[in-house]
Amino acid sequence: MKLYYAPGSCALASHIALEEAGADYEAVVLDFSANAQQSPDYLAINPKGRVPALVTDDGVLTETPAILVYIAQMFPAARLAPPLDDAWNFARFQSFNSYLCSTVHVNFAHFGRGYRWADEASSLADMKAKVPETMAAAFDLIEKDLLAAPWVMGEAYTAADGYLFTVTQWLYRAGVAPDRHPRVADHHARMKARPAVAKVLESH
Amino acid sequence: MKLYYAPGSCALASHIALEEAGADYEAVVLDFSANAQQSPDYLAINPKGRVPALVTDDGVLTETPAILVYIAQMFPAARLAPPLDDAWNFARFQSFNSYLCSTVHVNFAHFGRGYRWADEASSLADMKAKVPETMAAAFDLIEKDLLAAPWVMGEAYTAADGYLFTVTQWLYRAGVAPDRHPRVADHHARMKARPAVAKVLESH
Repeated sequence: MKLYYAPGSCALASHIALEEAGADYEAVVLDFSANAQQSPDYLAINPKGRVPALVTDDGVLTETPAILVYIAQMFPAARLAPPLDDAWNFARFQSFNSYLCSTVHVNFAHFGRGYRWADEASSLADMKAKVPETMAAAFDLIEKDLLAAPWVMGEAYTAADGYLFTVTQWLYRAGVAPDRHPRVADHHARMKARPAVAKVLESH
Repeated sequence: MKLYYAPGSCALASHIALEEAGADYEAVVLDFSANAQQSPDYLAINPKGRVPALVTDDGVLTETPAILVYIAQMFPAARLAPPLDDAWNFARFQSFNSYLCSTVHVNFAHFGRGYRWADEASSLADMKAKVPETMAAAFDLIEKDLLAAPWVMGEAYTAADGYLFTVTQWLYRAGVAPDRHPRVADHHARMKARPAVAKVLESH
């Protein structure tokens, strides 16, 4: 498999999952400063012009929640998702990942990519200024209601942990102090101590 | 099961899935004009203060992509998702739903809910004005690359079709002319002709 990514992007979650799975994969960095994600060559691979994109024997897969489950299914020994026939726990796992992609990631995207949704410089500045507030509020919910212990799903480490780690990096980048969410901060520290995470971070 | 919803919201996708599944369910409408989604009673059910929320024997489930798969698993005879052991097609299904929740829904949310991400009236007006452009662009991709025929996944109708139908309603509400996306318009018309969809629309 081949993972297209950019440092600091949400592709980190898929990258961690591949490493935790023990997959044989190649990580290909795209130079966002040169707008490589919009090059004709890359658009032929992923017409969305975004990362991550996972090139598999079956085809090209995009969207983090889909990629995480696919990796979990391809490498079942790594147990990166609840068993799919445990409908409720699989649904909890899915719900968590979906909240990260549709709410938390979106909140953070208004920090530097507000031009996706507005045109005026004053609007982009307004959006950017509000990000610490929206990120902190989303993590208030994660801290209180969504994050089990020691891992997102409870006793079992899953790919949702790598995804939470990724958006927690953004929480801190937005300037929210770690002591507001002590359980999240504890999770973040334990993630950094995992060998697979430390290895992947060298490329991000 | 009990589905909390508001007319015109993305809960329509889950509502259609329950109806197509032949589920025994109750649909409970929340009065958004009275801010019922933020009432203490509802926040005790769903601390996110949003819809949909599906109350099941296992617990309360939120986030559309998770709910759709859960319904598909609870009612396997309705075949509302690809078989979960067909990892690639299940991943395609998941990727489609994830694109709708994280990109298309988010684009439309800037029409009337820009206050989630900015504070100034000028910013909200700027966001609102851009929605036809961002919705049309997202549907350009759906039209060209993501929508198989006759249904999202190809020959088989799935819960992704009800989700696409839901966000296509928003495309039109944003003022994008149906003739820009003829394959989407055809899908929309065929969805409206399904008895389950027509029945659910009576409550939306």
